[in-house]
Amino acid sequence: MTVNVLFAARAERWETYEGPLRAALDAAGIDAHLSMEIAPEEVDYIVYAPNSELQDFTPYTRAKAVLNLWAGVEKIVGNETLKIPLARMVDPGLTRGMVEWVTGHVLRYHLGMDTDICRTDARWEVRTPPLAMERGVTILGTGALGSACAESLVALGFRVTGWSRRPKQVPGVDCLHGEDGLRDALARGEITVLLLPDTPATENVINAGTLALMPKGAFIINPGRGPLIDDAALLAALDRGQIAGATLDVFRVEPLPQDHPFWAHPKVTVTPHIAAETRAVTASQVVVENIRRGEAGEPFINLVDRNAGY
Amino acid sequence: MTVNVLFAARAERWETYEGPLRAALDAAGIDAHLSMEIAPEEVDYIVYAPNSELQDFTPYTRAKAVLNLWAGVEKIVGNETLKIPLARMVDPGLTRGMVEWVTGHVLRYHLGMDTDICRTDARWEVRTPPLAMERGVTILGTGALGSACAESLVALGFRVTGWSRRPKQVPGVDCLHGEDGLRDALARGEITVLLLPDTPATENVINAGTLALMPKGAFIINPGRGPLIDDAALLAALDRGQIAGATLDVFRVEPLPQDHPFWAHPKVTVTPHIAAETRAVTASQVVVENIRRGEAGEPFINLVDRNAGY
Repeated sequence: MTVNVLFAARAERWETYEGPLRAALDAAGIDAHLSMEIAPEEVDYIVYAPNSELQDFTPYTRAKAVLNLWAGVEKIVGNETLKIPLARMVDPGLTRGMVEWVTGHVLRYHLGMDTDICRTDARWEVRTPPLAMERGVTILGTGALGSACAESLVALGFRVTGWSRRPKQVPGVDCLHGEDGLRDALARGEITVLLLPDTPATENVINAGTLALMPKGAFIINPGRGPLIDDAALLAALDRGQIAGATLDVFRVEPLPQDHPFWAHPKVTVTPHIAAETRAVTASQVVVENIRRGEAGEPFINLVDRNAGY
Repeated sequence: MTVNVLFAARAERWETYEGPLRAALDAAGIDAHLSMEIAPEEVDYIVYAPNSELQDFTPYTRAKAVLNLWAGVEKIVGNETLKIPLARMVDPGLTRGMVEWVTGHVLRYHLGMDTDICRTDARWEVRTPPLAMERGVTILGTGALGSACAESLVALGFRVTGWSRRPKQVPGVDCLHGEDGLRDALARGEITVLLLPDTPATENVINAGTLALMPKGAFIINPGRGPLIDDAALLAALDRGQIAGATLDVFRVEPLPQDHPFWAHPKVTVTPHIAAETRAVTASQVVVENIRRGEAGEPFINLVDRNAGY
């Protein structure tokens, strides 16, 4: 029997995904009708991006699951018309991209690269950075992405502390949790990486109070979510030297408005939401694996906990 | 019996090394007289830096070994007054520092970080770099340092090719050797790292001919030795876009003269010979291990092959 798969994302994504999705469906031996236009009551699976026009799931009466193309689900998790299982994207390609971006920017701050990259005065100024084994890196958020980044940094020798709301274990990482744990984690982070989900509990987790708990001259790297940071508090901490630099990939408003002070601040590096992009080939394989599971009556993978919000 | 250990390096190094060397000698249970001034005929071991004033080893009639504080030995290996064993420095701290520096700069070029770090126009310009698994990195020189760097890059997923004069094997690395191997290795290196020793055979290994064999738009990273590169040929290749960028840590003359065109070239990053510094604590342990071996009649470690020159 043909499975009807609706592609509910913006049209430009269709060009990127049509080929990889068809290839993955074929490889899995699934006889599928894949389209951007299928009558709602005939749709079996919804491949979804939260910025899609589809926001009312009520007419999709026989759909078995919404398969998100994004890792972030905060724009859909509160949708009350969505009653069926929601799977987030856990794309191995996205994870690898995030690990590379985070590892690169941690090493950049660790080595003080900007001094050399931006130097214009032809000055031979020898300095010895500490070894990674002498450098404390804190990762707030030890989910799939945070854990993968932590493992890469541990392999390079960094002293890595991880923090999450609930207790977790990551090999080689000193894992803390809860409010007291957050204080300790912040105090150890000469370089702190934000990989928490965007929930009411994590909004503004980086604020005047928590910035003051970091070591003086700390660096912040945010490839997670824009609302994790109180922008004004970060700018103030940068201006008084409490924070030595910040590299930010995500923002409350994207693209970051041209007049936002982050753009011009000499201690801020803006990257245009490139730390983790879903890669069509690997992501399509993950989407199709869930369709295969749905058809075989097996449990879906990467399901979102609707109560926790991620 | 007291062992006489001469410290033959510049005076400022004495301040750095005296404490760690004494601590390492004590920890090894060696009764030593460590000093910068010992009568030559009474010296048992020479802890050495090639820029020392000591260049005539003839009077050191009972010395058992010269224990180099540097990884590079090109300034001493040809010294005809040196008849006793010469050990190079293989410092685990130095190796870790090199791995961190090389991994950081490879990731920097891989991710195109400079665009973000140096941006002044507030432009939100999304680009997706390839994943490391799609990026070819070539390491010329797969000795202790080159192999350690290769392993780190393999762990991040890069497609790593190694080249050395003689056949070698490094796990996860496609190892080539010889003249034909060099051609292939150069052709695969979207990013090429130079970690060859400085010998007559490796001088100017990066020249107009070999630069032309690299992929157009390749990047070069040189933490090895300055003479590996024909400076004028590199500048010409940068100017015509054959090479997109170069990060250079070592030079024929150091400090790099202020009027050298590398300083002002927009595609060149100069770092002041910081990629691999011997770290006093770990290096002192290596030096003392060889003194212990000499006293116990065991073979020295890290001996230099005087014929090969490294």
